[in-house]
Amino acid sequence: MSQSPKMGTLHGVGLGPGDADLMTVRARRLLEGARHVAYFRKAGRKGHALTISEPFLPDSAIHFPMEYPVTTEIPLGDPRYNEALSQFYAEVTMHLRALLVSGEDVVVPCEGDPFFYGSFMHIYERLRDTVPVQVTPAVTGMSAAWTATGHPITWGDDVLSVLMGTLPEEVLAARMKEADALVVMKIGRNIAKVKTALRAAGLYDRAWLVEYASQQGQTVQRLSDAGDRITPYFSIIVVHGQGRRP
Amino acid sequence: MSQSPKMGTLHGVGLGPGDADLMTVRARRLLEGARHVAYFRKAGRKGHALTISEPFLPDSAIHFPMEYPVTTEIPLGDPRYNEALSQFYAEVTMHLRALLVSGEDVVVPCEGDPFFYGSFMHIYERLRDTVPVQVTPAVTGMSAAWTATGHPITWGDDVLSVLMGTLPEEVLAARMKEADALVVMKIGRNIAKVKTALRAAGLYDRAWLVEYASQQGQTVQRLSDAGDRITPYFSIIVVHGQGRRP
Repeated sequence: MSQSPKMGTLHGVGLGPGDADLMTVRARRLLEGARHVAYFRKAGRKGHALTISEPFLPDSAIHFPMEYPVTTEIPLGDPRYNEALSQFYAEVTMHLRALLVSGEDVVVPCEGDPFFYGSFMHIYERLRDTVPVQVTPAVTGMSAAWTATGHPITWGDDVLSVLMGTLPEEVLAARMKEADALVVMKIGRNIAKVKTALRAAGLYDRAWLVEYASQQGQTVQRLSDAGDRITPYFSIIVVHGQGRRP
Repeated sequence: MSQSPKMGTLHGVGLGPGDADLMTVRARRLLEGARHVAYFRKAGRKGHALTISEPFLPDSAIHFPMEYPVTTEIPLGDPRYNEALSQFYAEVTMHLRALLVSGEDVVVPCEGDPFFYGSFMHIYERLRDTVPVQVTPAVTGMSAAWTATGHPITWGDDVLSVLMGTLPEEVLAARMKEADALVVMKIGRNIAKVKTALRAAGLYDRAWLVEYASQQGQTVQRLSDAGDRITPYFSIIVVHGQGRRP
């Protein structure tokens, strides 16, 4: 006699750059009402997404940590990297689907904006055709980074290019040469390569390095003052546009 | 015997893409506590910034509308355009500085993110050296647009390029050819030129058009289905990246 239950909704909730004050009103409300919360993290770590969300989650929320089998131990180009991640996404997706089909909503807090270089996309693509999904956009880490520099990123008709530090050096340099304003993400161990590319493009002296944008420990400095240290993976390099301004 | 009053703070407050639910917690709080509110608008219009902010402003807030002397009546390239705007910014800046120096905080609600192609930058650059300024980043219109399409904008190492529809056709086409993922803003009467450039770059069939992202009246469609009508100036065209995905 019983009907099959109404499906739950999968919520991809952008948390923004890290400062809880920069979370959207909707994100805050979804966290506060979460019954099931699922988040990515590196095995053995608490993870940024949980750290940012935790103050707002009810004590009763049921946690499902989704722990990456690999992060930087296997190079991106190695087929084993894609294989391991692919199997991982299939497994977590199966768990989430079971919850959703049983009628439970699941909140997935995501660093930054879920559809902008995010991990949520991988479960989204695997679930979107079978369960209801709602995605909440957010302030990006790059917005927090350029705001932290105290200079607008783009003026007038400036072209903004967003590049990943994981790209080959010659691709980086070529794209940098054509940009008016520039954001480089995923720096970390790519810093030396990114610096060389910036020099080749003539942008090194205009580049800023922002570490931990909007978070505890934020630093903002000209890249040329940063010395040779390795910066965190989530550091962001910003080169401001110089377009039309009345 | 009296000391000169403590200076007020100029708050550039990003409102996000329009949906009040996508405002940050900090933006909401700043609006709710505003004593002085100053916003850009076209003469004779209520303006988007006020429309989005109004439900959260106290009745007691003192309004200072900053009405553009020109928007599209004079072409961008005409020196009179820059002259008129330059004088306008000087005038509104003088008014704001007087308030700030007398110790009053002023909240300037801004559509989108203040440092991303925003008008706030023009008063910011004129005031930043003499008064305290705090800028609150926000969800961009482009984030709302790609979220509305239901497809992630960037994967893996995709390069994202953000272009203004006001650029010359050949510049648009050249930049489009090199992008993996693409956002084109400031469409309006530039729509025909933007379409030609997208065709030249081989991206026309992958392009989506989002009007009024996250707002009342939002539309989302493939550009090829949009026909020949002129779309609003704040429409956004999105071409999704196709990068690595496990």
